[in-house]
Amino acid sequence: MPIPNPEQLSSLLAVARGEEPADLVLRNGQVINVFSGQIEAADIAIHAGTIAGVGADYVGKEEVDLAGAYVAPGLIDAHVHIESSLCVPGQFAAAILPRGVTTAVVDPHEVANVAGMDGVRFMAAASQDLPLNVVVMAPSAVPATHMETSGAALDAEDLADLLADGTVHGLAEMMNFPGVVNGAPEVLAKILAFGGRRLDGHAPALSGHALNAYVAAGIGSEHECTTIPEAQEKLARGLYILIREATNAHNLHNLLPMITPENSRRICFCTDDRIAGDLLDQGSIDYMVREAIAFGIEPVTALRMATLNSAEWFGLTDRGAIAPGRAADLMIFDDLSAPTARLVYAGGDLVAETGRMRGESLLPSSPIPATVGSTMRVNWDGVDFPIPAPGAGPTAQVRVIGSLENQLVTEHRILDVPVVDGCAVADPARDILKMAVIDRHTGSGMSLGFIQGFGLKRGAIAGTVAHDHHNLVVIGADDASMMVAARHVGSLGGGLAVVDSETILADLPLPVAGLMSDQPVAQVAAAYGRLQQAAAELGSPMHDPYMAMSFMALEVIPALKLTDKGRVDVEACEFVDLFV
Amino acid sequence: MPIPNPEQLSSLLAVARGEEPADLVLRNGQVINVFSGQIEAADIAIHAGTIAGVGADYVGKEEVDLAGAYVAPGLIDAHVHIESSLCVPGQFAAAILPRGVTTAVVDPHEVANVAGMDGVRFMAAASQDLPLNVVVMAPSAVPATHMETSGAALDAEDLADLLADGTVHGLAEMMNFPGVVNGAPEVLAKILAFGGRRLDGHAPALSGHALNAYVAAGIGSEHECTTIPEAQEKLARGLYILIREATNAHNLHNLLPMITPENSRRICFCTDDRIAGDLLDQGSIDYMVREAIAFGIEPVTALRMATLNSAEWFGLTDRGAIAPGRAADLMIFDDLSAPTARLVYAGGDLVAETGRMRGESLLPSSPIPATVGSTMRVNWDGVDFPIPAPGAGPTAQVRVIGSLENQLVTEHRILDVPVVDGCAVADPARDILKMAVIDRHTGSGMSLGFIQGFGLKRGAIAGTVAHDHHNLVVIGADDASMMVAARHVGSLGGGLAVVDSETILADLPLPVAGLMSDQPVAQVAAAYGRLQQAAAELGSPMHDPYMAMSFMALEVIPALKLTDKGRVDVEACEFVDLFV
Repeated sequence: MPIPNPEQLSSLLAVARGEEPADLVLRNGQVINVFSGQIEAADIAIHAGTIAGVGADYVGKEEVDLAGAYVAPGLIDAHVHIESSLCVPGQFAAAILPRGVTTAVVDPHEVANVAGMDGVRFMAAASQDLPLNVVVMAPSAVPATHMETSGAALDAEDLADLLADGTVHGLAEMMNFPGVVNGAPEVLAKILAFGGRRLDGHAPALSGHALNAYVAAGIGSEHECTTIPEAQEKLARGLYILIREATNAHNLHNLLPMITPENSRRICFCTDDRIAGDLLDQGSIDYMVREAIAFGIEPVTALRMATLNSAEWFGLTDRGAIAPGRAADLMIFDDLSAPTARLVYAGGDLVAETGRMRGESLLPSSPIPATVGSTMRVNWDGVDFPIPAPGAGPTAQVRVIGSLENQLVTEHRILDVPVVDGCAVADPARDILKMAVIDRHTGSGMSLGFIQGFGLKRGAIAGTVAHDHHNLVVIGADDASMMVAARHVGSLGGGLAVVDSETILADLPLPVAGLMSDQPVAQVAAAYGRLQQAAAELGSPMHDPYMAMSFMALEVIPALKLTDKGRVDVEACEFVDLFV
Repeated sequence: MPIPNPEQLSSLLAVARGEEPADLVLRNGQVINVFSGQIEAADIAIHAGTIAGVGADYVGKEEVDLAGAYVAPGLIDAHVHIESSLCVPGQFAAAILPRGVTTAVVDPHEVANVAGMDGVRFMAAASQDLPLNVVVMAPSAVPATHMETSGAALDAEDLADLLADGTVHGLAEMMNFPGVVNGAPEVLAKILAFGGRRLDGHAPALSGHALNAYVAAGIGSEHECTTIPEAQEKLARGLYILIREATNAHNLHNLLPMITPENSRRICFCTDDRIAGDLLDQGSIDYMVREAIAFGIEPVTALRMATLNSAEWFGLTDRGAIAPGRAADLMIFDDLSAPTARLVYAGGDLVAETGRMRGESLLPSSPIPATVGSTMRVNWDGVDFPIPAPGAGPTAQVRVIGSLENQLVTEHRILDVPVVDGCAVADPARDILKMAVIDRHTGSGMSLGFIQGFGLKRGAIAGTVAHDHHNLVVIGADDASMMVAARHVGSLGGGLAVVDSETILADLPLPVAGLMSDQPVAQVAAAYGRLQQAAAELGSPMHDPYMAMSFMALEVIPALKLTDKGRVDVEACEFVDLFV
């Protein structure tokens, strides 16, 4: 919250003293007090978006009788990539505000990989005037490695600029944890540029001495824990544990049993990556709170983890609790055993009611700069899908990415594929498909390979959501479908498509950095659903082949991946030939 | 902790990784983990004053086997006026470091009233190179009111200067709570100058709407709670509760029953004002921890209130826990049911053992500027003690300050005093003594009155410790003793004295601002003991007449007080005549 001026503070105090009427008084609430851990019957007086007083005997210009409903502080998502919802910030807000989530700490890592500083600044600008309080952290690992072509690189100086001009609050997940642990100079430079600020972590399975080094460097949180021993060790070493329940990573139920009265203050909730449909159908942090309570966590404790704890970790002293001087971000609900927002106030305004936004939609008010809105720089002359296998017999032995359902890691398989007319080809009957990654940032070229697990009997899927570089990825059963899919995504300015031969079965334009739609979130979710259905009709057994595809080009997660520069043996950290 | 440079961080990480030997490894400790709430058997590796790792398998250049002793983070005093110990920072440190208190958040309010900005800067400079980590807050109410002559006035601009040059961390106790609540512009200016920083509170018995206003203004803590309902209300409104156990204000045992697993994270410990003898005999925050445990608070919870909680309130992310990257401030003890420091490490150095400092004494290294070291500017020509009572009969009706044992409030009494040779005089038989307050800052003059409760049968006591202005106060049975006492304190350059006619019975020079001795703390405590004894021999029934005297000139605490400008009816907030 910006520091008020004397007049603003003075009138807030007059309302707090009860000498001037409040803008709004919410009467007869059962207020979740995250400080005392108790629930108190009280009224809440609100002035200019801020809570002026909690107690009795306030008079408001407007008064609402809550008739005993519960009032919690607006929930906080402690770590989320808005881009993963496939929506721009305004529509992401439209998805989560009705859930009672009023603050999101975001890492614009994806758009930064596409559009660099402009991408980060666009996300901050597009979030600025929303009723959702968006706290932007600086993406710490752009690009992920030099084995890919990304749209931008951000060094320590860039990140320091973002801090200096107030765009960012701290440093987002430090994914290059080996670089931190080993003290790589360019990584330490980023850390030191954020001295005294909050530094989020990302260090799957890090333990022992290496974990000590990671924490000693100043990292203060971790959201990658998957097991209780891992989370307990990290918590004991001083990291806030941000329990994650993403679309593609489900840690909540595994970790709930670790929560005790002694350690709960060091635990927060985050969603990390959630697609629009999950946000609309299941919810966001509110879903995690309900699940925690259903598991047996005391409701006030669960709500405290989703509010005060995150506010404390990030030093957001102006929110996270229902108290004078804090933002009037409130989630009002009726069932303490399963909090589901009925009314949501953000900055003192009623923004959502019974799960729906009120009033005008939340389209971003800021213009989309060309560097963000026009990011398909494919050199189409260089796009071609045949894989010549000179000198091969009827089959050729190749490396195949073994994709595993609901996992980001892959297997590094060696298989024979048919050779037709001198080219190695897909073999849909054995679920061996072709995969291409096409540089869409600089038009430098593309690479090709084989993949198993997607199960398409025919056709192709393509998309520009591909961590972390977000190049154009195509997976298909035949070259013609792949070309149509790739070109269609190109014509959309980025997005997702599923193609059967010449026919576009479904698509979702993502014109904002090739990552986000600026259409209403419900439309995005519906289009995404049609994409899934079409892929299933083509034979894919996967729950979400597009999500799966988006990790097949991510060369920091083992074992075999394909970037626009070639096949990467992740453990060896080197490029490998297709043919064995 | 200052932000390290790349080389420092790099070598810390090498030690954390176990690739370089640590400076020191403490083996086989039972480590109090304030994050998990558990006690874990572990080694602690220390590099350059910082904890590099917690766990096993570290090698140190020096290794110490703790043989199962407990290790807690160094304790934090969340609010203390060093001046109240009557010692300079170095000797205050020598008193509390052996207790395991390694961080003190200090408000140099007293020296600021005498020596202004120079006083604040002196305290910061004298604290800088100590093994005690001193966090200086900016005194918020200098002077207390305009009904006294103080040595300095600090306005919002002054305080902003202290913040800008790094002297202070936040704003110390906002004593002018009516000014905050009512939005007095000069008070709000101070608050706004510290926007985003920590603002400590001081608002005895504030409640309801006024409390809401106080919190809405941005105040975040309170150490003046005396009852559980008061503390519960303040905690629920969002204030950290700093439970205080001072020499002159005992709140600990009254408030211990409020502590619950749900609210303990919002509760800290502080001493506020403790004389040297109490620190040496009873202890500091360590005493509070022992008393809390004896009362029934779980030991790790009690230690956590004395460490992590205070670190969190003040945003001291570099200490308050035993974890990588935090200062190697450690308190090692043997009895979990009554933690008493056996070894104390500060910044990785063993600074105290079995209750005593090791090595050289802790005299301040910084020179004492003249504005701090030479503060007795009394105009002795204007010092005279007779109280003419023109036209009075054998007695005159006067206002008498009714001093009450162990209370800062006084009664406003109307009594007859004898008139001798045309002057109203003391009547020791009825315990009516004369009191004088002499401006020692500008030499503008003095005022006279009567007081009951000090019980001197003869002689006088005098001193320059007199909240908040710290003028020269004299209380005596006869004018001659009062003059000798006053002049002796003057000749000491400030201090305390007790006199019987021409004889100095005992004294304690306080040449630093008339508030602090630069002698060893044990000598200060001994001299203070002799002062008490001498006052008792003169007939005073008070436990500590010097402490009592130091509040008799404080015109912000009811009912009748005497400043150098005259008698103050505190409730009416106006000067009143001596004769009724």
